Amino acid sequence: MALVVQKYGGTSVGSVERIRNVAQRVARTFDEGNQVVVIVSAMAGETNRLVALAEEISEFPNEREYDVLVSTGEQVTIALLSMCLQSMGYKAKSYLGSQIPMLTDKVHAKARIKSIEDKYIRKDLEEGTIVVVAGFQGTDGEGNITTLGRGGSDTSAVAVAAGLKADVCEIYTDVDGVYTTDPRIVPKASKMQKISYDEMLEMASLGSKILQIRSVEFAKKYGVVVHVRSSFNDNPGTLVTKEDTDMETVLVSGVAYNKDEAKISLLRVPDHPGIASQLFGPLSEANITVDMIIQNVSHDGFTDMTFTVPKTDYKKALGIVEEVSKAIGAGGVKSDENIAKVSIIGVGMRSHSGVASTMFETLSREGINIEMISTSEIKVSCIIAAKYTELAVRVLHEAFGLDRQDNDES
Amino acid sequence: MALVVQKYGGTSVGSVERIRNVAQRVARTFDEGNQVVVIVSAMAGETNRLVALAEEISEFPNEREYDVLVSTGEQVTIALLSMCLQSMGYKAKSYLGSQIPMLTDKVHAKARIKSIEDKYIRKDLEEGTIVVVAGFQGTDGEGNITTLGRGGSDTSAVAVAAGLKADVCEIYTDVDGVYTTDPRIVPKASKMQKISYDEMLEMASLGSKILQIRSVEFAKKYGVVVHVRSSFNDNPGTLVTKEDTDMETVLVSGVAYNKDEAKISLLRVPDHPGIASQLFGPLSEANITVDMIIQNVSHDGFTDMTFTVPKTDYKKALGIVEEVSKAIGAGGVKSDENIAKVSIIGVGMRSHSGVASTMFETLSREGINIEMISTSEIKVSCIIAAKYTELAVRVLHEAFGLDRQDNDES
Repeated sequence: MALVVQKYGGTSVGSVERIRNVAQRVARTFDEGNQVVVIVSAMAGETNRLVALAEEISEFPNEREYDVLVSTGEQVTIALLSMCLQSMGYKAKSYLGSQIPMLTDKVHAKARIKSIEDKYIRKDLEEGTIVVVAGFQGTDGEGNITTLGRGGSDTSAVAVAAGLKADVCEIYTDVDGVYTTDPRIVPKASKMQKISYDEMLEMASLGSKILQIRSVEFAKKYGVVVHVRSSFNDNPGTLVTKEDTDMETVLVSGVAYNKDEAKISLLRVPDHPGIASQLFGPLSEANITVDMIIQNVSHDGFTDMTFTVPKTDYKKALGIVEEVSKAIGAGGVKSDENIAKVSIIGVGMRSHSGVASTMFETLSREGINIEMISTSEIKVSCIIAAKYTELAVRVLHEAFGLDRQDNDES
Repeated sequence: MALVVQKYGGTSVGSVERIRNVAQRVARTFDEGNQVVVIVSAMAGETNRLVALAEEISEFPNEREYDVLVSTGEQVTIALLSMCLQSMGYKAKSYLGSQIPMLTDKVHAKARIKSIEDKYIRKDLEEGTIVVVAGFQGTDGEGNITTLGRGGSDTSAVAVAAGLKADVCEIYTDVDGVYTTDPRIVPKASKMQKISYDEMLEMASLGSKILQIRSVEFAKKYGVVVHVRSSFNDNPGTLVTKEDTDMETVLVSGVAYNKDEAKISLLRVPDHPGIASQLFGPLSEANITVDMIIQNVSHDGFTDMTFTVPKTDYKKALGIVEEVSKAIGAGGVKSDENIAKVSIIGVGMRSHSGVASTMFETLSREGINIEMISTSEIKVSCIIAAKYTELAVRVLHEAFGLDRQDNDES
């Protein structure tokens, strides 16, 4: 008998009909002799409806009350799914974050999980009850409701799986696994059978929106095996798991892209100690996350500094940089919103050389200019003009041997 | 400085715009130097929407999960109202039933309040915070959500007022007080300034749907002064309060009617001990509430028994009575759905005689036949044919001097 944690997202529970389908899948897993804990999101559209109400009331709604409001979405789903399982003759019981309890810090709207009580859930499981848990929500230990931020139900699921030492955490979504790249761009993209936590973290942060990043960090920390699969069919999906030697034989596992950043350059900066903090200090105070940073070698005591920020913070960042430019006597500011970041990811890079240069050559052969480069142990990212994104993804996918050969895979 | 508890029903908080209006009224009460606790219902239509979802899932939804589901309605309202007050510059904080905590018994969907913790709310009030409480919901002390039944927010409000020893409990609704009778039938009906708890209980149970009966019982038990008034204007409403000598000078305070009952007669019942329990035992086991019961004097060892049941249980009751009729060898069953109960209510009856006979004469003068009569210390009820309801209410209202004389009242 295995202990299986299953998580169903908003699309999978988007209507009464779909909740019935989920109930059937849960029941089947139970009938196969497993203990089952189900984590569910709000019905598709519900969170948006609630957020719209809050925004109609106030431009900056109080975050404690925001959590009271939006956590009702998951509360509705757990009740409906439990009722549905009961009407099918199963024992089922719903749990709110505060009923588990799932303890978090006090940071409303983006709380982090601190600990999970497994006593009550374990007792229910032992009595043959299917446990249905509200994703996305917790409690701060002083009776206040907290929420984990968008996509937080993934993290709830992994955390519950970790807390209960579950055998597997199945994340059901509307795609049937993690692909080597976006299949809308590369039809020959193939579903990976396995991916390591670190690769998945890079894939997630670089623009693949399948799992909330924090859920992968959590899975890595506690060694939870995550199975990403579709709630609309029975195909095996992708296992997100510990690195193994198989994985290292592959040079590059996937190609990711991200069009959500913009580039800002501060020109002819007087090159003396402390200049970086004069620039990035104010950006950080304004809560702007800087991603890639490049500082060219100095000429005649001057240097250029280039960095990327999320497009949503672009205007705000530009204003700050222009102030800084005047204050430190730099030569001016240049910026570009029409950029994309293209990345290759693979734990195999650690033991193989020449991966980066293959990437550069491949892009150059297509006449694609590389504007910035950043690397880690297991990835290489290049900033290019946005219009080349699809072309770059396609040629890199092919160059690293990721194009699917056979045609019999679904 | 007074401590004011205010309760706003679903219509009063039915849209963002109306929530803003409620916030303004609450803020005004606070600005006048009062401590304010607000109890709110779900936004109009929301509870029905949630119940419909449950019914789509299951014909008999599990009651624990039903409470998890429907309690989200009030949770949404407390968050929105708190946000609204905060955006106006006030300190506000929402409380779920489980956060107060408001302890109830374990009877889901119609729980009864056992106790209320006042510690946290009192601390907030002392710090100048407006406290916003979810009506209708509590917790059973083992972490489960309970709800108090339809109209339960009234009871929540009175219970909170009792727990905090509030100076007044204002119930805001879409009518501006308690009237001597239904103004749709008698345009000269007038708003009462005051009504005693006992009279209000009779008014409520006899068909005036302004306050949940249990809230009045609670108010009576703990001596909470309830002020029923409109959320759409500033007119003084009706005080529901302890009996005083003023009230006794009035013979009849109001005329109520109820078309929701049906009449069943069991004919030629062999009149021997135990016959009543043979009839009413099975009805009670089927959870059917019997209201009026009349047993005629016996002739030749046989009697007729007539009683009324809610129309919603009529068919079920009829089936049971027909079984009983056969079993005990009675002469048959007669029944009538087209009846109405018309009642006159007033604490003055205790000290005045002749009230009932005035009622009978008044009805008889109009040719209205009285089919059943039941009396208590402070009311007389008659069952008549349903088609005479409006006529009966009008003539009784006039006969007991309740018609409004002046025309200057709004």
